Amino acid sequence: MTGYSVDGTRLWSRLMDMAEIGATANGGSHRLALSQDDEDGRELFLAWCENRGFTAVFDRIGNLFVRRAGRTPAAPPVVIGSHLDTQPSGGRFDGVLGVLAGLEVLETLEDLELATEAPVEVAVWTNEEGARFQPAMMGSGVHCGVHSLAETLALTDASGIPVAQELERFGYDSGVEPGSRAIGSYLELHIEQGPVLEQEKKTIGVVTGGQAIRWYTLTMTGEETHAGPMPMAMRRDPVRQLAAVTELVYRIGLEDPDARATIGVIETQPGSFNVMPGQVRLSVDMRHPDEAVLGHMHGTLAEGIAQLNAEAEGVDINLEQTWHSPVVTFDTQLIEAVRTSAAARGYAARDMVSGAGHDAFHLAKVVPATMVFVPCRDGISHNEREYTAPEHVRAGANVLLDVALQAAGVQAPAGATA
Amino acid sequence: MTGYSVDGTRLWSRLMDMAEIGATANGGSHRLALSQDDEDGRELFLAWCENRGFTAVFDRIGNLFVRRAGRTPAAPPVVIGSHLDTQPSGGRFDGVLGVLAGLEVLETLEDLELATEAPVEVAVWTNEEGARFQPAMMGSGVHCGVHSLAETLALTDASGIPVAQELERFGYDSGVEPGSRAIGSYLELHIEQGPVLEQEKKTIGVVTGGQAIRWYTLTMTGEETHAGPMPMAMRRDPVRQLAAVTELVYRIGLEDPDARATIGVIETQPGSFNVMPGQVRLSVDMRHPDEAVLGHMHGTLAEGIAQLNAEAEGVDINLEQTWHSPVVTFDTQLIEAVRTSAAARGYAARDMVSGAGHDAFHLAKVVPATMVFVPCRDGISHNEREYTAPEHVRAGANVLLDVALQAAGVQAPAGATA
Repeated sequence: MTGYSVDGTRLWSRLMDMAEIGATANGGSHRLALSQDDEDGRELFLAWCENRGFTAVFDRIGNLFVRRAGRTPAAPPVVIGSHLDTQPSGGRFDGVLGVLAGLEVLETLEDLELATEAPVEVAVWTNEEGARFQPAMMGSGVHCGVHSLAETLALTDASGIPVAQELERFGYDSGVEPGSRAIGSYLELHIEQGPVLEQEKKTIGVVTGGQAIRWYTLTMTGEETHAGPMPMAMRRDPVRQLAAVTELVYRIGLEDPDARATIGVIETQPGSFNVMPGQVRLSVDMRHPDEAVLGHMHGTLAEGIAQLNAEAEGVDINLEQTWHSPVVTFDTQLIEAVRTSAAARGYAARDMVSGAGHDAFHLAKVVPATMVFVPCRDGISHNEREYTAPEHVRAGANVLLDVALQAAGVQAPAGATA
Repeated sequence: MTGYSVDGTRLWSRLMDMAEIGATANGGSHRLALSQDDEDGRELFLAWCENRGFTAVFDRIGNLFVRRAGRTPAAPPVVIGSHLDTQPSGGRFDGVLGVLAGLEVLETLEDLELATEAPVEVAVWTNEEGARFQPAMMGSGVHCGVHSLAETLALTDASGIPVAQELERFGYDSGVEPGSRAIGSYLELHIEQGPVLEQEKKTIGVVTGGQAIRWYTLTMTGEETHAGPMPMAMRRDPVRQLAAVTELVYRIGLEDPDARATIGVIETQPGSFNVMPGQVRLSVDMRHPDEAVLGHMHGTLAEGIAQLNAEAEGVDINLEQTWHSPVVTFDTQLIEAVRTSAAARGYAARDMVSGAGHDAFHLAKVVPATMVFVPCRDGISHNEREYTAPEHVRAGANVLLDVALQAAGVQAPAGATA
């Protein structure tokens, strides 16, 4: 514990101000990656930064870095980051909290006139949500060399608009090469997006790593026909396979309390009341904290689909894995620093594994990184109802401040408690 | 049999020309109701009509009527009709055959200089498919007083565009009152859209009536959340109800060989890979030639859904009937005229009930009406692959000619075979 604290009121009011951009009827936010709303949110953030004299740079995939100088300009910065884009009907805290708490840490250092050895930066990663452009965690993935810049720029949204076109619109195409800026260590504060901390009345989640994630596209193809004349027995109706396919997916997800299986998207083609669809496509998202167990789940799904495909007369069932994010393990020293800070401040804490994917997963591949979780009401996230109490917002930012100061190196000015 | 015959080659070439408007990559057509493609198709049709001197009028819901005068101008016309709009990936014959065969009958009468007592008209009904605007058979429904003009004008498509706006764009808003023009009797030629005629090597389907149809919207509502953190056991996932719901629908559809059950549209909200949907909506289309049996199917569906809703913890399952088209019985004399014509021409024929809904269903409520079916390959319709052989197209138009002449009343000019 550093004896210094953030201004929780200022941080809360900024969270509420940011939520007004792309505000939805039910109190959530709609800022799809690289949309005008997303850009408006970034502009508001940058105005706050410039107001305190922090310099901002961006890279060619649109990642933003806001810097507070350190005593040793050449030292790689401690970076605190997350994202400002949201789901189609997203909440006020997912991602936004991590970014604005980072800014709050920078402002607290300014207020206290605390000089750090290494610079401290706030990063805003492009398209973490993956709602408009897949894959999710796109900007941090390019920064860490997981995705090539060229291929990522060519990705298009559902309406065919490429990433490159939007970046150009906002002027990001003229930025620095992604990954060219050094990072010493990376910290990310986020809401848990699950019910555990709230149920156990804990304030801080000490995140030791992340679940492994696999994404799939399941396509069932039959023969489109009119809903009336064709006898049922003669139909090649892909929708009739939906029961068996969904039951397989959920059986796998229910095999183990740590497993997750989600069908987020279902589409029928052509999608008309009186046409028996020729094709049904659905997305499958499977997760587990143990890579080997997820591998087993993958095998069960692949075998199950192959068997259903063999049994399905007149309908072709095809499974394609579109993404795999392996298990993530965070940096031992940073994890310990989070534990120590929470304990020193008297915040009830527990170790946990992140169920959601985060930009920190990519960063952990290239630099020492960790995350801090705070509770969210009813464990609800990716939802307009998403809510985290002001005291939890403040607690998370204080832990971020402690760990950032320890990582950046600071000498307390005379008079301050050590 | 009249001894007169249509020009099958002219009719076929017009079918192929019309298919070029909104032509799709796989040989089908895309002319959604009241879209620019739909209007372009109507313009081509009207150009052909004007070329032969047939006068056209339209009404305020966009129904078109093309008239060939009769000896008794005051006599209510014999109307041959169908539609030119298509499904999103529709074929070249559904609807189009009925309209262009009607025009072929008018042109044959011109070619033969045959005067009829009553006028003979071709009708193009607006939005028969119901793919863009629900309900289907919209224009004929308004003409027959089944739907109010005002309510129908206010209907919007998925993007919120109202029917009235499109009608205005094409100038139809200045037309005559729907239903104000008298009709003596109504005939409609259509492809079977099923496999029966082809399998039994029949050329003509003598349509005695139509199946009863009910449409439903099934909505399952849970609680949207992130795909990762929330334990499976704590989720309120509406997609998990899909298996039980679809199995119920298909069980009902498979109870009886004459029954039909189709799920044409499935949508997840918000529809993102890593969001467990808060809501799933699907369409259900149920049909049966016996009104009482469809009523029983309706009861089974309603009870089944109520029971599933009671059992489904944390998910609300709601069933709403959005449309009911009762069993249709066609005019005995016109049915007999179709039977007689087919027999006299040596076309193998059989009586049958229409599995699809048609504009003739509405017309039958207000005037003597019937339909003529011809085979389509593999029974496939509402599909780009939809195909009907030229000889079947010609045969259907010849039967239409015979029945129209009998209904309109004609005196053979000297020299013509009686």
